[in-house]
Amino acid sequence: MAPITGSQRASKGFEQRPEILQDHANQQPTMETIRTAITAAISNYHDFNPATIDELAEEPSPLEFMRYVSRNRPFVVRRAAANWTAVKKWDAEYLREKMGREEVQVTVTPLGNADAVVEDTNGQLLFVQPYETTEPFNEFLSYVQADSACPLEQREGRNVKYAQTQNDNLHTEYSTLLPDIPSSIPFARIALDQEADAINLWIGNARSTTALHKDNYENVYVQIRGQKHFVLLSPTEIPCVNEQPLPQAHYAPNGEKGELVIERDLEAEDLPFATWDPDAPTERMTRWSGLARPLRCTLGEGDVLYLPAM
Amino acid sequence: MAPITGSQRASKGFEQRPEILQDHANQQPTMETIRTAITAAISNYHDFNPATIDELAEEPSPLEFMRYVSRNRPFVVRRAAANWTAVKKWDAEYLREKMGREEVQVTVTPLGNADAVVEDTNGQLLFVQPYETTEPFNEFLSYVQADSACPLEQREGRNVKYAQTQNDNLHTEYSTLLPDIPSSIPFARIALDQEADAINLWIGNARSTTALHKDNYENVYVQIRGQKHFVLLSPTEIPCVNEQPLPQAHYAPNGEKGELVIERDLEAEDLPFATWDPDAPTERMTRWSGLARPLRCTLGEGDVLYLPAM
Repeated sequence: MAPITGSQRASKGFEQRPEILQDHANQQPTMETIRTAITAAISNYHDFNPATIDELAEEPSPLEFMRYVSRNRPFVVRRAAANWTAVKKWDAEYLREKMGREEVQVTVTPLGNADAVVEDTNGQLLFVQPYETTEPFNEFLSYVQADSACPLEQREGRNVKYAQTQNDNLHTEYSTLLPDIPSSIPFARIALDQEADAINLWIGNARSTTALHKDNYENVYVQIRGQKHFVLLSPTEIPCVNEQPLPQAHYAPNGEKGELVIERDLEAEDLPFATWDPDAPTERMTRWSGLARPLRCTLGEGDVLYLPAM
Repeated sequence: MAPITGSQRASKGFEQRPEILQDHANQQPTMETIRTAITAAISNYHDFNPATIDELAEEPSPLEFMRYVSRNRPFVVRRAAANWTAVKKWDAEYLREKMGREEVQVTVTPLGNADAVVEDTNGQLLFVQPYETTEPFNEFLSYVQADSACPLEQREGRNVKYAQTQNDNLHTEYSTLLPDIPSSIPFARIALDQEADAINLWIGNARSTTALHKDNYENVYVQIRGQKHFVLLSPTEIPCVNEQPLPQAHYAPNGEKGELVIERDLEAEDLPFATWDPDAPTERMTRWSGLARPLRCTLGEGDVLYLPAM
C-alpha cells in the first residue's frame, strides 16, 4: 500500500542529453530540431559544470574518486607521486643503466604528430599513423636528448621520436623499470575493484604531441619528468570536434635520406576521428565548436591527473 | 620526460553513445547515418549489460553503491527495510490513528492513469494530468480500501485515487509518520555526500499506475505495504520510447455526477513525453522499440530498489 521514496540527486550529465530521438512515422525530427537539441545539451552541460579542473589537496578516497568517475570529471593532485621511486630517481643516466641496449618500440614523425590528422597536398584530410621502428633504448634516449638540446631553428627537417606504446609496456619492454612504480594506485584499484588493465610508460620531448582523441579507459596519469600540457573536452562536446571518417595512412621512410612521406593504407576502412583542434579553433569548425570550453592543465613532476574515460 | 599511465576501465556506457554529431559544412550526416548509429548504440548497450536487475544479498557499502550510480544500473535488496518501524507497524488502523482527518492531497483519475498519455476522441495524443483535490486522510484511505475490496467488474466507472505528491511530503503533510522512517539511508547519504532532496510517501492500490517517465534524481525506493511492479529502461533506450511533444490537458469533474472529463490546457506548451508503452509494445512503435529490453521487477514489503536517475 505504501511505497516510500528517498531521492537524491547526482549530476550525471543526463539532463544535458539531447532529446532528438523520437522517430514516429508521422513525426520525423528535422535537422533543425536535432541541432537545437545539441546546442541546448552543450550549453546545459556548461551551466552545470565548471570550466576548470578540480585540484585536490591530497589523493581522494576510493569513494571520493568514484564520485568523479560517476560525474565523468577530471581532477589533479599536485605532487601526489612525489615519493615514487620513479619520480625520485629517474634521470637519463639511471634509465640508461637500467635499460641499456634493450630494444624498444619508437614512433617517428616529421613534426611530432603521432596519430594525427594531416591534410595532404590535395586538401584531403587523412588519419596518419607514425612510422614505427625499434631501436636500442640508449640510442633512442640520446636522440631525444639531442633533439631537446638542439636550437629550434636547427630542428627543421629533424624527425621527432616518441616512445608511446600502449600495450602495458611496463610489464613488457620496460619491465626492468616496473619496480620503481607502486604495484597499484590504491584509490583507483579499490574504487573500481580491479587492477589496472595496462601500465604504460611514454617518453618524448617538447615536440611530441597527441591529437585530440578519446579512450574507453579510466586513466590515472602520472608525470615523472618534465611537463605535459593537457586540453580536455567532455563527451557532451563531441559535436564540437567535427568527427569525420578519415582515410588512413602512415609515414614511411623514402629514398636515400629516409625522409618520411605519407603512404595511404588503401585497404583500411575510414576511421572516425576528430578533425577540430581546440588549439586552432577557427579551422574546421562545426556550428558548435564555438561553444566548447576546453579544460586545460599542465602537469609537473609528481603530479597526478585523473582522465575520465572518453 | 616520462609520463606514465595506469589505466582502468569502467563501463560508463559511453562506447554506446551514437557518433552522429559531426556537422562539417561539406559532410552533413544523413538521417540514415543517424539511424544506424542509434541502432548500434542500443545493441552495444545490451551487449555490455545484462537484461536483469542485480539482486544484492545485503545493503551495498557507499562505494559499492557508487559503482551502480556510475554505471547507471539499478539493483534490488530484498527485505533490506524489514526492520523499519514503518514496515513493522503500518497498517490501516495505525495510519488512521496517526493521520486522522488531516487534509492530504489526492489525485483522481478514471482509470488510475496519473500523468498519462491519453488518446482523445479525435485520435490526438494528450498528456493528461489527474484531477487534484484534498480530503481528510481517513476518508481517502477508506476510499482506497473500499476500491481494493470491490470486485473488478463493479469498479467500472469508479474513479481511482492515489496520494502521490512529490514535494517531500513526509516533511509536510505526512510529518506525523516521519519518525517511523530512518533519518537517512546511510549508503546513499555517504556515497552522494548529501541528504535526500525529498522523502515521499505514496499510497495507492492495484489500479494505480504511473506512465513511463524519467526523473533527474537518484532514487532509493522502499516498498512498505503490498507490491509494486517496475518496468525500467536505460537512458540508451530513449529512441525506443517515441518521445513526442504532447498538448497538455487535465481531468476535471463535470456535471452533477462529477464524472471526470479531459480539459485541454490551451495556454500550456507541449510537453515532450514517452508515447511508447513497454506493456503495449506493438502500439506507437519507433523503428527501435523492438530493440528495447525492459528490466522488470516486483517489490514486496521491505524490499529496496535503487532507481538510477533518468
